[in-house]
Amino acid sequence: MPINANFRGIPSAYLFGEVNDRVRRYEAEHPDSKVLKLGVGDVTRPLAPAIIEALHKAVEEQAHAETFRGYGNEFGYDFLREAIAQGEYASIGVDVEASEVFIGDGAKTDMANAQELFTEQATVAVTDPVYPIYVDANALAGRIGTFENDRWNGLTYLDCTVENGFQAPLPKQPVEIIYLCSPNNPMGAVLTREELEEWVAYAKAHGAVILYDVAYRAFIQGDEIPRSIYEIEGADEVAIEFGSFSKTAGFTGLRCSWSVVPKKLVIDGVSLHDGWARRQATKYNGTPYIVQRAAEAVYSPEGREQIEQDIEYYRRNAKLLKEAVQNAGIEAVGGDHSPYIWFRCPGDMSSWEFFDLLLEDAQVVGTPGEGFGPAGAGYFRLSAFNSYEVTLEASKRLAEVFAKLTTREVSLER
Amino acid sequence: MPINANFRGIPSAYLFGEVNDRVRRYEAEHPDSKVLKLGVGDVTRPLAPAIIEALHKAVEEQAHAETFRGYGNEFGYDFLREAIAQGEYASIGVDVEASEVFIGDGAKTDMANAQELFTEQATVAVTDPVYPIYVDANALAGRIGTFENDRWNGLTYLDCTVENGFQAPLPKQPVEIIYLCSPNNPMGAVLTREELEEWVAYAKAHGAVILYDVAYRAFIQGDEIPRSIYEIEGADEVAIEFGSFSKTAGFTGLRCSWSVVPKKLVIDGVSLHDGWARRQATKYNGTPYIVQRAAEAVYSPEGREQIEQDIEYYRRNAKLLKEAVQNAGIEAVGGDHSPYIWFRCPGDMSSWEFFDLLLEDAQVVGTPGEGFGPAGAGYFRLSAFNSYEVTLEASKRLAEVFAKLTTREVSLER
Repeated sequence: MPINANFRGIPSAYLFGEVNDRVRRYEAEHPDSKVLKLGVGDVTRPLAPAIIEALHKAVEEQAHAETFRGYGNEFGYDFLREAIAQGEYASIGVDVEASEVFIGDGAKTDMANAQELFTEQATVAVTDPVYPIYVDANALAGRIGTFENDRWNGLTYLDCTVENGFQAPLPKQPVEIIYLCSPNNPMGAVLTREELEEWVAYAKAHGAVILYDVAYRAFIQGDEIPRSIYEIEGADEVAIEFGSFSKTAGFTGLRCSWSVVPKKLVIDGVSLHDGWARRQATKYNGTPYIVQRAAEAVYSPEGREQIEQDIEYYRRNAKLLKEAVQNAGIEAVGGDHSPYIWFRCPGDMSSWEFFDLLLEDAQVVGTPGEGFGPAGAGYFRLSAFNSYEVTLEASKRLAEVFAKLTTREVSLER
Repeated sequence: MPINANFRGIPSAYLFGEVNDRVRRYEAEHPDSKVLKLGVGDVTRPLAPAIIEALHKAVEEQAHAETFRGYGNEFGYDFLREAIAQGEYASIGVDVEASEVFIGDGAKTDMANAQELFTEQATVAVTDPVYPIYVDANALAGRIGTFENDRWNGLTYLDCTVENGFQAPLPKQPVEIIYLCSPNNPMGAVLTREELEEWVAYAKAHGAVILYDVAYRAFIQGDEIPRSIYEIEGADEVAIEFGSFSKTAGFTGLRCSWSVVPKKLVIDGVSLHDGWARRQATKYNGTPYIVQRAAEAVYSPEGREQIEQDIEYYRRNAKLLKEAVQNAGIEAVGGDHSPYIWFRCPGDMSSWEFFDLLLEDAQVVGTPGEGFGPAGAGYFRLSAFNSYEVTLEASKRLAEVFAKLTTREVSLER
């Protein structure tokens, strides 16, 4: 039979689909309710003026034969690859060549496609909880066995618990592909320099490749926390890094991302840089020209300033939410270097029980932790991506619900 | 070893990369020359006013919180899926539901990804010559064996020759995936209703799936030639169709495409519609909102009229080129329902010999037929995608070169 049966092996709908379904159902039954959505991590601030200006300008170029641009380089225009090499790497003292930067249409796409660089037999480790795409992309490729008892039997799970500070422990058995994300989705935790050094050393010792997701790096504050894995010596021999304009600059509807595949990244004599170049040239036709011009504008002086204001706006929301949770005696992580707050559901409720209760009693939507993996069961994620007004109202409603629910402290421990 | 070695098994660079390299080299050595590019099939007309207007309007929506749009549906916005169902299908009497239409970022991407629906063991047939992406995507997936003596030993080639009117014959051995393209790239030939009926009957009889590429359908004239495979009864049980705004509406730099996966397309009890939906939800995050609004504008009354003018413009170019070839006594196909002209190189030259001669003697760039597969050896493709002025000048230069080269008729036959 010629059909890829892996498409049938994946359980249930994608997490956010289920969240949206439940919300839609509630709204249909309660047409007058005002549901406050802190579930899906989607930005709400409009695009910054510098980006809008760049878009209008690029659209106008496309209106005239003299300035019209058709097919671009599949890897992206040099102006943007250069801007990223400078703005994301040289700016933090990291040496990345423009030719090592590949422009994509989203970190989700790039990270789902990166597994194509490996054989079907390659062994994979993910954190648990985890951004579901890392797992699902490997499941579709038939790389991680079958799904039984809430886990894929061919996948190595690295449990993130309160004991290890919600940081993934090194794998107990050798693995060849490791997905890491810092600042982390969904837990909002960050990898310190020392922790990242351990991961790079592990990868070197075991011939593993780290797929490193920095979609939330714009939320990192101060100079202690690494913004790129390439801040660690030797990481360019073991890691591919994935960045995105979605959460940094509000590109969730505009779609632009980048991946860095260092030329030094050679495994078993095969250059992953050349492999990725071949993959992209064969299966991608480049990010829209006008979108690449928009992304370039993120690095202009005005762009930078406007983007930073938006990040500050979401940071203030995160602070509000974290306080609402903590003031109710519920321990929480995240929110400092991340737009996400992570805590244990009060009253020993399951994630979906708490999701439903919050929706019913407070008309607030969050994301059930178990949607990110079994180690997320009993936990909950709140997102700072909404307007200040909505977040303020949500934090008040949360306080009321918590007041009814919690009579004692809720630690992060299960 | 964990690395996908298929990336190393693919011979040479992608065709258009090699073309571009030779042109760049020539231009570097002859900085004063004016090279006329009829090689890569890239449009040159600017985007139509209706599209530009839609883009500016959508960009402005993204500038204000009240109208800002973040993540969209991975399958595309309903407004565009509906516009395509109406504008491309209902308009020709074909019943396609909006929910069967998936919006993508390019037919190249969609067609390269579609093979993921099948197992690694599924058998594949392509025409020869062929758009190289169909082959390379399957090569990267390890589905078509190894490359030896100019062909993949696990791939079925359907030779398109003058004897069969450059139309692929039915496969001699059973295959499970068949790539077809009409109007055809590179040969410019079209499948008639009768021929398409044979293909659908073949697919039904053998449980095969046809991946049908209609990227050039806007060039079809009159009512005889099918514009969609779904004009054939029962095709919705055996075919996926791929369309694009690139050649129709000048979107090569803007990036928008669609695929139709009918709900009736069920193979071995597996719904390919559900499989593709799962694939796209997992590995894609949707086409930019502003680009989808631009694509929607293609179906407005003004949009339609402007687009048709652009197509007419390129048709006039195609006519000029075909005449230049035919007037020199060289038989040619294509150009009528297609922007491409296909002919045999005069003087029994190889494709690359003729490519180099044309570049050296006339500073005209075409595409060597053998770049599309071994059956294309000795043939050449000219593209109508350039300005009228460039095409006129190129046709004069071609006439001069041909006059020097051909002392007798050149038939399409080898």
